Amino acid sequence: MKSFCGKMLEVDLTSGKAKNILISEEMVKTYLGGRGLGARLLFDMLPAKTEPLSPKNVLIFLTGPLTGTMVPGSSKFVVVTKSPLTGGWCDSYSSGRISLELKKAGYDGLVIHGRSNHPCYLRIDEKGVQIREANLIWRKDSFETERILRESEGNAPVGISSIGPAGEKLVRFACINSDLYRQAGRGGVGAVMGSKNLKAILVKGSQRIEIHDRKEVVALNRLNHKRAKQSQVAQARMKYGTPLTLNITHTGGILPTMNFQYGTWEKALEKIDSIGVHKSITAYKACLFCFTHCSFETRINEGKYAGGVLEGPEYETLGMFGSNQLIDSLPTIIQANILCDQLGMDTISAGNIIGFIMECFEKELLSSKQTGGLEIRFGESEASLAALRMMAHREGFGEIMANGVKVLANYIGNDSNRFAMHVKGMEFPAYEPRGAFGSGLSYAVSPRGACHRRAWPPAKEILGGYPPYTIEGKAEMIKALYNENGILHSLLVCDMPAKFIPMSLDDYSQYWHAVSGESVSKEDFLKISERIETLIRMFNNREGFTRKDDFLPYRTLHEPLPDGPAKGQCIGEENLNKMIDEYYALRGWDASGIPTEETRRRYGLLGENEIQ
Amino acid sequence: MKSFCGKMLEVDLTSGKAKNILISEEMVKTYLGGRGLGARLLFDMLPAKTEPLSPKNVLIFLTGPLTGTMVPGSSKFVVVTKSPLTGGWCDSYSSGRISLELKKAGYDGLVIHGRSNHPCYLRIDEKGVQIREANLIWRKDSFETERILRESEGNAPVGISSIGPAGEKLVRFACINSDLYRQAGRGGVGAVMGSKNLKAILVKGSQRIEIHDRKEVVALNRLNHKRAKQSQVAQARMKYGTPLTLNITHTGGILPTMNFQYGTWEKALEKIDSIGVHKSITAYKACLFCFTHCSFETRINEGKYAGGVLEGPEYETLGMFGSNQLIDSLPTIIQANILCDQLGMDTISAGNIIGFIMECFEKELLSSKQTGGLEIRFGESEASLAALRMMAHREGFGEIMANGVKVLANYIGNDSNRFAMHVKGMEFPAYEPRGAFGSGLSYAVSPRGACHRRAWPPAKEILGGYPPYTIEGKAEMIKALYNENGILHSLLVCDMPAKFIPMSLDDYSQYWHAVSGESVSKEDFLKISERIETLIRMFNNREGFTRKDDFLPYRTLHEPLPDGPAKGQCIGEENLNKMIDEYYALRGWDASGIPTEETRRRYGLLGENEIQ
Repeated sequence: MKSFCGKMLEVDLTSGKAKNILISEEMVKTYLGGRGLGARLLFDMLPAKTEPLSPKNVLIFLTGPLTGTMVPGSSKFVVVTKSPLTGGWCDSYSSGRISLELKKAGYDGLVIHGRSNHPCYLRIDEKGVQIREANLIWRKDSFETERILRESEGNAPVGISSIGPAGEKLVRFACINSDLYRQAGRGGVGAVMGSKNLKAILVKGSQRIEIHDRKEVVALNRLNHKRAKQSQVAQARMKYGTPLTLNITHTGGILPTMNFQYGTWEKALEKIDSIGVHKSITAYKACLFCFTHCSFETRINEGKYAGGVLEGPEYETLGMFGSNQLIDSLPTIIQANILCDQLGMDTISAGNIIGFIMECFEKELLSSKQTGGLEIRFGESEASLAALRMMAHREGFGEIMANGVKVLANYIGNDSNRFAMHVKGMEFPAYEPRGAFGSGLSYAVSPRGACHRRAWPPAKEILGGYPPYTIEGKAEMIKALYNENGILHSLLVCDMPAKFIPMSLDDYSQYWHAVSGESVSKEDFLKISERIETLIRMFNNREGFTRKDDFLPYRTLHEPLPDGPAKGQCIGEENLNKMIDEYYALRGWDASGIPTEETRRRYGLLGENEIQ
Repeated sequence: MKSFCGKMLEVDLTSGKAKNILISEEMVKTYLGGRGLGARLLFDMLPAKTEPLSPKNVLIFLTGPLTGTMVPGSSKFVVVTKSPLTGGWCDSYSSGRISLELKKAGYDGLVIHGRSNHPCYLRIDEKGVQIREANLIWRKDSFETERILRESEGNAPVGISSIGPAGEKLVRFACINSDLYRQAGRGGVGAVMGSKNLKAILVKGSQRIEIHDRKEVVALNRLNHKRAKQSQVAQARMKYGTPLTLNITHTGGILPTMNFQYGTWEKALEKIDSIGVHKSITAYKACLFCFTHCSFETRINEGKYAGGVLEGPEYETLGMFGSNQLIDSLPTIIQANILCDQLGMDTISAGNIIGFIMECFEKELLSSKQTGGLEIRFGESEASLAALRMMAHREGFGEIMANGVKVLANYIGNDSNRFAMHVKGMEFPAYEPRGAFGSGLSYAVSPRGACHRRAWPPAKEILGGYPPYTIEGKAEMIKALYNENGILHSLLVCDMPAKFIPMSLDDYSQYWHAVSGESVSKEDFLKISERIETLIRMFNNREGFTRKDDFLPYRTLHEPLPDGPAKGQCIGEENLNKMIDEYYALRGWDASGIPTEETRRRYGLLGENEIQ
């Protein structure tokens, strides 16, 4: 098939050996690439119940069949592994030049096994892979690592993904950085990379990526570019970027404030929202192959952190370091973001954890004696930044923080788990589900934990006219969103242009044809998505996840939201259970959340390893 | 023997194998260490007529029996090899923590053979040596290289020697840098290291260095410290450092000006001399184990290069980049020095070459057409700095400059070799021999080419009351200076404290006893020195050097100096020949400069490989 060359590079860091794996065309038609192919590979390659940070875990980098084909948002890749944060399925997305370079080097992806007996990095090109010593970049932050690696290639354009100190120290929410400011952020994929003693991956390709009908891709791009120009949403997003979301969530009453105690924060407005951030934008940025430049660069102009430069901050960071911590200083949030990027940590989990600790101090469940002197109260930005360094390096109390909010709440005890905002161990992102019940369901059933990427919370319940404080139709809504995004994440195109322009699965069907010469309908896509979702569910079941893991924290279920448009709302256990029942039924899973034999047969998933 | 453990590390970069070589006590008593032992090892290990930049050349790092013993100036080491600049003997000295760390790791020195098939660096400790990949530091400047290596050791105190881009590009006067600002500068030892694909050597030791009578060393130090306090010379040197020399050479009329056309330069005074430099000193510096802090730090406070920090500049750099190029801007000279250090080039050779090119432009023997646009005229500092970058990277005309002034003059032709100021291919340092005939002899007969370190030119003829413009007694004077310094350079102590305090060979005899428990008289020392000098002569003879190579440039011999106290003087061919005859006779060498059988017998050098 054009554009998907069917070759993956498999490296065993324990033995130092590498080989190619061939992916059949049939496999691509069954699972596409990215998320789907990743589900298939992880299920097949990972021994059941593998400890995520053991050498036996598998770290998979995947592109998709549209990667590097000029399709808008087609410079993304996904890292698939078993998460050290949740112990379950993890797919973590990023954009980065590495996706393009992998393709140009003749690979659709990369499968990494084992553990090197010394710090190493991979250098990949058409000739294959070299496992090189990384003594000189080990302990360096991600920016420095990337700089040194780029310079080692004479600053030629190469793709680089790396981990920071947090990944080396196995911080359970460590991320993988690419092109400085792009992160495969969620689920601790950076810790898995660190556990393999793998500091970085450098890829340099030079082959042309084959496309069935280049002219047709260009024609579709022209059409969609025109539509983007006419789209008010796209125009607003290109002007304001994701910070626009803060105005949407504040208006909808789902802006997490003070560790999800409240759902609105007036002080955020014009300071850390679209208006506030817009004033600090120094340049607009776009990923490779994307004309919807939703990204931008900001610069800290004054104060202690003057000079700091960032691509971002994105909404999630504004929410988790801003309202959630009661910090209204944009320079502080930018600095926190830079620090997280350099240290190699997910801003969402890190910000959530700090917010949780702030609430623990507020409630006097934690004292500075316990934290070795660190005292973090809502609104105190210096302490927040200090906490980031501690958790990244696992210094002092950072040793506890580095394991995520779930472990932290267990450590602190005293019912603090009631407001430890996570699902399956993965921290909530910056959307308050009490103001959008469907997003509560989405958090609960998402296979990777509390996740906003498979069904963007504001899409329907704030912006789409769906009543937010009911459970009716939410299971169907969430399933539809999951299925659609499942395709984007398997073709491996960014969901931003899809949302902004907007582009439907029919549009991607046209791109698919232009790129591969093959025809696939929207219906085919949706069936593939169902298959993928079921397989991932089976993977999690195999790893020990049952219905009880599809849960929401006490606060979300039982504490009414005290402010904003959703004042008085909480989801309630009964509501959640009803939504889950309905969701399972729609998926063809039994009441325990296990795919039925009939469902498995329908998607060709019979004969898999029995669930253990 | 205490303090000299008798163990050397031998590494073959071609095979990747390493082993220990044991040095007998007898060998130490016969050759001491440093220069002497280096002569023995190079003579024995290097196949005759080896091409200096071939894998067969041997690169030897040596400490001495006083290294790391608290004796003043005992943190020096020497690099011994066959020079790519002269094709003959090369010993190049530097101070640096690496000398101490080598001792602490249990080694007296390091012998490097072969060529790695990839850029590498060595990491050495008590457990031995690792040949590590250097992809990530290859192409980096010396400062950056050292920074990255230090960080890779968590910034623990380690010894590091490295090459810059000039060494990688085999620039024939590339140096080896240690501790940022210390260079084994002369003779192209950095190019030999580069030719081996060896970017750096990192040494970390932790053993205690054994000393026979530590109390006695401390007592001697106390005595000499007291003497240093009472010495006006030492006090002046500690206040002004080597820039004081500029005032001495200007006064004596031997300050090279405009590529050795003149011997004085009024404009240098109070700008780039002791007074001028003293104003820019921001801190004083001393090497490890030295209480005569002759070094200092300067900072560029304004202009284009503001912010530049340097340990230095030393006199040689002030002379070769200042008066010799007619540049009276201290910031420019500091910047040139920083650049040379970063790029890894000897400031003396580089400054000399640029001065030569300036004269070629002045005499219209060279046009910017030939140099690819570069036009360098006396006093033009920007062009001078640009030339440094070009030669280090061998860009454009830099390809020619990188081979030294001898090759450059051959390329330019038109009798430009008459003012190509070098001996055996090694560029003159900053002393004009027409104002000190003995130093002319010293340049001519020094085995490594035009060298000021074995017999410091101003010592006797400017400051010592010896008449400068005669040849009488100069051979004996030079021999005596060579012999004394030969011991310092074999014990491997710095000659600065020896000169400033001053300390005699009797003083070092006392230190030797305190350190080793053995007795050696001044007479023993001098015999050893004669032996060493004869062996080195034999080495050079073997490599093809004859009396014709003990020469001086046309300008020095035939063009009367036009200014200053030495106005009207030039050495003349007859004078030079007489001094050389006398020098050979005093050494026991025949009229062709070949040690006689009797001489070789006297120093135990019979039975060596026959001279080829």
